[in-house]
Amino acid sequence: MWVVPEKEIAGLMTPEAAFDAVEAVFASMASGDAYNFPVVREAIGHEDALYGFKGGFDRKGANLGLKAGGYWPNNQKHGLINHQSTVFLFDPDTGRVAAAVGGNLLTALRTAAASAVSIKHLAPAGAKVLGMIGAGHQSAFQMRAAAGVHGFEKVIGWNPHPEMLGRLADTAADLGLPFEAVDLDRLGAEADVIISITSAFDPLLMDGHVTGPTHIAAMGTDTKGKQELDPALIARARLFTDEVAQSLSIGEFQHAAAQKTISDSDVIAIGRVITGNHEGRGNAEVTIFDGTGVGLQDLAVAGAVVELARQQGKAIEVEI
Amino acid sequence: MWVVPEKEIAGLMTPEAAFDAVEAVFASMASGDAYNFPVVREAIGHEDALYGFKGGFDRKGANLGLKAGGYWPNNQKHGLINHQSTVFLFDPDTGRVAAAVGGNLLTALRTAAASAVSIKHLAPAGAKVLGMIGAGHQSAFQMRAAAGVHGFEKVIGWNPHPEMLGRLADTAADLGLPFEAVDLDRLGAEADVIISITSAFDPLLMDGHVTGPTHIAAMGTDTKGKQELDPALIARARLFTDEVAQSLSIGEFQHAAAQKTISDSDVIAIGRVITGNHEGRGNAEVTIFDGTGVGLQDLAVAGAVVELARQQGKAIEVEI
Repeated sequence: MWVVPEKEIAGLMTPEAAFDAVEAVFASMASGDAYNFPVVREAIGHEDALYGFKGGFDRKGANLGLKAGGYWPNNQKHGLINHQSTVFLFDPDTGRVAAAVGGNLLTALRTAAASAVSIKHLAPAGAKVLGMIGAGHQSAFQMRAAAGVHGFEKVIGWNPHPEMLGRLADTAADLGLPFEAVDLDRLGAEADVIISITSAFDPLLMDGHVTGPTHIAAMGTDTKGKQELDPALIARARLFTDEVAQSLSIGEFQHAAAQKTISDSDVIAIGRVITGNHEGRGNAEVTIFDGTGVGLQDLAVAGAVVELARQQGKAIEVEI
Repeated sequence: MWVVPEKEIAGLMTPEAAFDAVEAVFASMASGDAYNFPVVREAIGHEDALYGFKGGFDRKGANLGLKAGGYWPNNQKHGLINHQSTVFLFDPDTGRVAAAVGGNLLTALRTAAASAVSIKHLAPAGAKVLGMIGAGHQSAFQMRAAAGVHGFEKVIGWNPHPEMLGRLADTAADLGLPFEAVDLDRLGAEADVIISITSAFDPLLMDGHVTGPTHIAAMGTDTKGKQELDPALIARARLFTDEVAQSLSIGEFQHAAAQKTISDSDVIAIGRVITGNHEGRGNAEVTIFDGTGVGLQDLAVAGAVVELARQQGKAIEVEI
């Protein structure tokens, strides 16, 4: 079994490598070469923790396994971050465990890669302004991945807590891009691409905010009850996601689905655009990608990082 | 993360230690201190493999995690056994991965420990003769565990393929017990305790075979469609299992449940007997334990083996 420790991931994995891995597995999902297993997610009744497993199999990428871990909200007292996860890969030919990989940074990278994939395939022609809604830990990863895949000229941002906007300003500065804090009216009017990455339980970006050709990557909603976008905005947009069933049950599109303003057939798997099976943006004014996060993304980036770690002598081989 | 390789398990884990771990976790399940998560089990469409995850949390035993792996029927070409699994333990206080343990031998030991637990608590007074139905790989583990928990004086056995009975004879000889191959009429009449461990899809042991006070551990049925016992025998017996819902859906009692000759309330969690919450055998002539196999058993024996391996300097510490 190869072990790649959490501390090595930052030196091994790039946003570009994460992008390639996630784009490839979304394509595999759309072509029937890869599928996600049912998700196990348990409130274990200890330390207020949520724990579970996201597994899948990608025949084309030869990735089989799961991400295990969850959310431990009291971890600060142990000097640890609250999200803790590990990815385990198995040999699809024999069932033997092949690798154990620290999953914390990989989770951030694969989530950011998903919105970047949507931006590559769905951004309006000539998009120049990136709008960021949310300034938490994930927002910096999102901005970096987006800037890596498209030549933006400016970043504008809004956050429910304005005192956190420094993260967006700093990240934009790192990327050599001007940054401006704006209200949601200006954000919706000026941004050509919007990434929404919050933990909101009520819509922040309303239909009236958004004008002109726009692509929105809604990355925050991964649980029943969470919501970032006005259902009226969803109703007039062309809709894409990583996994349709998950999007309609626990993703951003859950609310529109519950209100029956959209149905299954209105939501397009992004992999179909990647494989050329769907035109993508076409003549739509607004496109929305609902990034719900699937186990196959975790396996894809973990598989890529194990390759890199072996090539660079940073993977530890342990008999098991 | 502590790693305990498969090759070390045989030198670390005894049937007695497996017995103690499994008896304790069955008690935890009955007292509400431990529960199993939904099982993920997937035919992945590659190498005819079945792959999945059995997870759970035992607050009392401080075991959290899963067994991952499955059944790869073509593994002989790789020089490997068909059942391949690995157990991963997590720190319940932080969500960090704590151990990775080879799960192949542990699976055999925890399965055998379950029937031994049932024999300790349910065998008729003065039981002398152990009857074995099945002579596959698991049968030797079953016989050893049973002999370790009860002073049997003789073993008798039957197998659909009589040429395999040598395994039972050899194992009995190792244990210093006389062995006799018999037909099912004699087996049911003479054995005080019967362990059934086959892959049958039709009943082998019929109601008419079984006479006198008898305890039967039905260990083979773990999937829809499998069956070892005559439903009429089940209908007249007092019924026990590891996990009631699993027993009625994929265990030996699935058929009687489907025919509505038994209901949920007829099946008693063995943990209730261990904790003194249920009398056990009482005045029943025939008792049956349906061992379906739960993730918590895997976590319990893996937790025990990690302790032993650390004490004996056989656990490998790897940063992850």
